[in-house]
Amino acid sequence: MKIEVLKENLKNGLNIVEKIVGKNLSLPILDNVLIYTEDNFLGMSSTNLETAIKIWTLAKITKKGKVVVPAKFLSSFVSSLPNEKILLEEKNNNKLYIECKSYKNEIQGFNSEDFPLIPDFKDAEFIEIDNKKLCQGLEQVVDIASLSQSRPEISGIYFSFIKNALKIVATDSFRLAEKKILMDKSVERNISFILPQKPAKEVLNILQDKEGITKIYILPNQVMFEFSMKDFSHPQVQIISRLIEGEYPNYEEIIPTKFKTQIILKRDEFLNQIKTASLFSGKLSEIKITAKNKEVEVFAQDSEIGQSQSSISSKTEGEEIEISFNYKFLIDGLLKIKSSEVLFQISREEGACILKPVGDTGYLYVVMPIKSA
Amino acid sequence: MKIEVLKENLKNGLNIVEKIVGKNLSLPILDNVLIYTEDNFLGMSSTNLETAIKIWTLAKITKKGKVVVPAKFLSSFVSSLPNEKILLEEKNNNKLYIECKSYKNEIQGFNSEDFPLIPDFKDAEFIEIDNKKLCQGLEQVVDIASLSQSRPEISGIYFSFIKNALKIVATDSFRLAEKKILMDKSVERNISFILPQKPAKEVLNILQDKEGITKIYILPNQVMFEFSMKDFSHPQVQIISRLIEGEYPNYEEIIPTKFKTQIILKRDEFLNQIKTASLFSGKLSEIKITAKNKEVEVFAQDSEIGQSQSSISSKTEGEEIEISFNYKFLIDGLLKIKSSEVLFQISREEGACILKPVGDTGYLYVVMPIKSA
Repeated sequence: MKIEVLKENLKNGLNIVEKIVGKNLSLPILDNVLIYTEDNFLGMSSTNLETAIKIWTLAKITKKGKVVVPAKFLSSFVSSLPNEKILLEEKNNNKLYIECKSYKNEIQGFNSEDFPLIPDFKDAEFIEIDNKKLCQGLEQVVDIASLSQSRPEISGIYFSFIKNALKIVATDSFRLAEKKILMDKSVERNISFILPQKPAKEVLNILQDKEGITKIYILPNQVMFEFSMKDFSHPQVQIISRLIEGEYPNYEEIIPTKFKTQIILKRDEFLNQIKTASLFSGKLSEIKITAKNKEVEVFAQDSEIGQSQSSISSKTEGEEIEISFNYKFLIDGLLKIKSSEVLFQISREEGACILKPVGDTGYLYVVMPIKSA
Repeated sequence: MKIEVLKENLKNGLNIVEKIVGKNLSLPILDNVLIYTEDNFLGMSSTNLETAIKIWTLAKITKKGKVVVPAKFLSSFVSSLPNEKILLEEKNNNKLYIECKSYKNEIQGFNSEDFPLIPDFKDAEFIEIDNKKLCQGLEQVVDIASLSQSRPEISGIYFSFIKNALKIVATDSFRLAEKKILMDKSVERNISFILPQKPAKEVLNILQDKEGITKIYILPNQVMFEFSMKDFSHPQVQIISRLIEGEYPNYEEIIPTKFKTQIILKRDEFLNQIKTASLFSGKLSEIKITAKNKEVEVFAQDSEIGQSQSSISSKTEGEEIEISFNYKFLIDGLLKIKSSEVLFQISREEGACILKPVGDTGYLYVVMPIKSA
């Protein structure tokens, strides 16, 4: 292998593939990146056996080939080089020679035959979606998945394609977030899967803010997110993950549809008041919300710390009500709402409540109150 | 106590006094800040018994008094409030009532009589120095002090006032940094002290970039740095620390004065080449510098990682020489040098070397090479 590539392009690619590389004591080959030639591209791949990433960048290929070298080491090393053209050349004994201006370096690598094969999705069906819409939706949902592995199906993110809509859902049984995205084309048949949270976060990390199209390839146990820039035939990134087996709970049942009280509030002010009150909420993380006729009161108290009270003007419909929440769940929901006003729907003192952005019907955040002792 | 103060002023003061507050299980009163009235100022004090900080801000005093409340809690709480006027009022049972717009809060505090007394420097002699010069000098020296407590005198920063010069010195026995600052007035008698590294870093953190005068008050076992803004009669901050007992080593003896080789190099390029080579330096952290006629070569090698070689053009005077260093010590020194060119003076293969900024005679960094096996 002998190639020339710009430092920036190599660095950007390595920064991405190294994300899923850890310190793997039982299978040290996984600490490495596979660097290879493909047409007029330099390809970089990494895998931790649960997730794999492939990325391509334009390069001048003088001689085809592939090498396997430590991913994090190569990434820090390339970052330290001047912003110029870099020559990469395969040498004897799995060594990679790297030259850049006055720098001449040799990195000890491994046999490329030992690098694990990354699954092939050639004949899989796929669905196309605008990448920015996908990432914006994922961002509003991904953090909410359960951290516990006792119910593996809710530890992942649920993707459900029905006709021309994709619903992305996550819950940890205390709260639930659902984002509905409309697509340009309808799917041929309804399809759904549960993606583990970690690769879902990688998709977001890697693809966020990129303009283009993401194709989602689906196999029975695996999924691939393939991003291509507009008007570019070769994909730029592929993120491949195993799926979580099992049925996602029928979450739509728990979303309340009748409400005792509905309030419209300024989102930022409500968020700030909850943050201030949270400091006084003590070990139970409990804050009390009182919806009055034209204002909402936020209150928290702890005998060792003191107490906090504040109020915010509101448009209230329905009954006056007093209801307690874990402040973290309210803050998480409000942070995912981007509109200036938020609609807060309360079904009853002990039932699920809903937070929604005013003016956006695609998102909802369901949160359970704290039951009064 | 009843006072009104702007949120920004209160927040800025608390951000500073909370720096030295930890979680003190044996003496929990030290987790608090003392808030008190003094003329038309609000004063804030904290102490960890080794270091104390006092800070003042303008306030509208309606009723004199003092309160003691948890420092870190009050600081996060005040940060969360709107950017407006804040009312602070002492209530029964050591409670502090705080009101800001729609926020009404009560914080449980402690008996202010239990707060430790902070030493008084009324009759101590003092030396005046331009605050920016003091901080710039301290910044070039403070990190170099020894982290080991086996020789307490070199774990601190040495301040030595002789005539119209202040020398600030630190060493860990592998390298040494000295900064000489010229003052407007000569001291009446030569005086020196050893300040522990932590409060020296606090002085830097708190006073860096502030325009004004710092008075250094010296008592046999304690020192106070008192900063005042220009044309302002009341001091803004006081930082008080105990001193380290013992004699500082006669460090001037080890600074070489005769050199086999002297090199002038571009500082940034040299620093980058050392950083790149450092990745290949392995467990010994060793890199080899070869000074040739018109260039300097930087080399590192490790059998498991690979090898790195680069070169930089130089003005060399004296003999060609090959000499090895711990890369960390070179990087630390180069980072403290702000000029675009650096003078590198090598006495002999195994003797102390010097790094100096070209065009600034006030600073020098002495570094020991690695002895060849």
